[in-house]
Amino acid sequence: MPDNRPIGVFDSGLGGLTVLKAVMEQLPSENTVYFGDSGRTPYGSKSPETVAKYAGQIVRFLQSQDVKMIVIACNTVSACASDLVREMAGVPVVEVISPGSATAVAQSQNRRIGVIGTKNTVASEVYIRAIQSLAAPDTRICQQACPMFVSLAEEGWWNTPITRAIAGEYLKDLLACDIDTLLLGCTHYPLLSEAIGAVAGPGVQLINAGHSVAREVYQTLDRNGQLNAKAQLPSHTFYTSDSITQFSQMGSAFLDHQIDNVSRIDIEQY
Amino acid sequence: MPDNRPIGVFDSGLGGLTVLKAVMEQLPSENTVYFGDSGRTPYGSKSPETVAKYAGQIVRFLQSQDVKMIVIACNTVSACASDLVREMAGVPVVEVISPGSATAVAQSQNRRIGVIGTKNTVASEVYIRAIQSLAAPDTRICQQACPMFVSLAEEGWWNTPITRAIAGEYLKDLLACDIDTLLLGCTHYPLLSEAIGAVAGPGVQLINAGHSVAREVYQTLDRNGQLNAKAQLPSHTFYTSDSITQFSQMGSAFLDHQIDNVSRIDIEQY
Repeated sequence: MPDNRPIGVFDSGLGGLTVLKAVMEQLPSENTVYFGDSGRTPYGSKSPETVAKYAGQIVRFLQSQDVKMIVIACNTVSACASDLVREMAGVPVVEVISPGSATAVAQSQNRRIGVIGTKNTVASEVYIRAIQSLAAPDTRICQQACPMFVSLAEEGWWNTPITRAIAGEYLKDLLACDIDTLLLGCTHYPLLSEAIGAVAGPGVQLINAGHSVAREVYQTLDRNGQLNAKAQLPSHTFYTSDSITQFSQMGSAFLDHQIDNVSRIDIEQY
Repeated sequence: MPDNRPIGVFDSGLGGLTVLKAVMEQLPSENTVYFGDSGRTPYGSKSPETVAKYAGQIVRFLQSQDVKMIVIACNTVSACASDLVREMAGVPVVEVISPGSATAVAQSQNRRIGVIGTKNTVASEVYIRAIQSLAAPDTRICQQACPMFVSLAEEGWWNTPITRAIAGEYLKDLLACDIDTLLLGCTHYPLLSEAIGAVAGPGVQLINAGHSVAREVYQTLDRNGQLNAKAQLPSHTFYTSDSITQFSQMGSAFLDHQIDNVSRIDIEQY
């Protein structure tokens, strides 16, 4: 019996669409429900308590959609509130910190790993703990908050001279640490991959956690016998807490796939 | 009888502190209550309906503080929801669109006025209507949305080479319009005045609406006999919907004045 209930994916806004994109590519038969909290974005500069409250409301909404799994496609929520989400969910939960960290550890040759993310993600040191729990003891981890990167992604300035100048400013200390691996610790950042890669140079490999997350989603569903084997075209449904027009326009660019069926909900009621 | 009730000032976050600063300078005897909605900032990219809902909650909070006047120190709310605020308030309301527009019209010599603001403010065309209602018919108004400016102000990059490069990108079409006056249509933007001024050049005068707003606050209170003539030191109280630490740290820089007495409130309950 295939389980054709949807996979629920959520983020503070549109960034999580880079994770959904990886899930859709690796699990092309699965139905999905995406919620982007554009009405309250960004989470990165908000306090952990506020982020936890918002995450709780979103879990209740996704439960109302009868999801078989919840993907926390948001680094800030993964860092601040993944325990809360697991306690509430009643279904398997995949977050974005552990899969990306495992990939970074597996790929680094010189054991010097850079991590970039929002202020909250960096201050939480969640990536340091995740990487240290997996890596050789002499592994060195260098972090940098890059708050302007989200604005650049949403402005559509994915690879302009200004984008590379800002990336150069943010990355200079990490590059001085001689990193060979750079974990993109925010779901918006893969959109800036070309600019970040140009500044980091060919000696640094970028880790887009979305691919690692999608692999863990597949493995978890497969292990639980919950993959949807149906051959028919899957449905991809989208919800936002703000303007449908803005979500579908910018979201289609982020997902690299036309978004039509998006609805607006009042998330504060959940 | 002086009216020693406080003046209520609010914004989507910290930007309105540039307006409060002007009010404190021009009305040094007045008590003030400031609310910054940092838990839901920024408003500029949110839909008008969402902004109106948030503004209504904030008006109810300020009413609970027994304010004698409400200053909408937020261009997005002034553009989307000032009628709603006036209907609800029960006290005089001063917003930021009209005073700044009047100053721009009065100061422009060549009748070519530039306006910069958030996406919502620009799309609302509220400044075009406000300026056209005051200006000579042959006045030309050129607008430009500058969404990265808020991030630059909050990152503390007020006048760096990157700031000037981004300003150059945003201002190039306005400068091609031969403007002699540039209205800073977002309360964050005065913090970037030096960078914006350097790019715009000496032939363009920048209008910081905060000064015009403070003048209107004074005139309205004076007309109504509501000025606070008390000689004692006024109290300045601050409320935020997010982290107190972040508010007081960044806010003190924005206000150019140490912020100590800040409290966190749950604005969704109002």
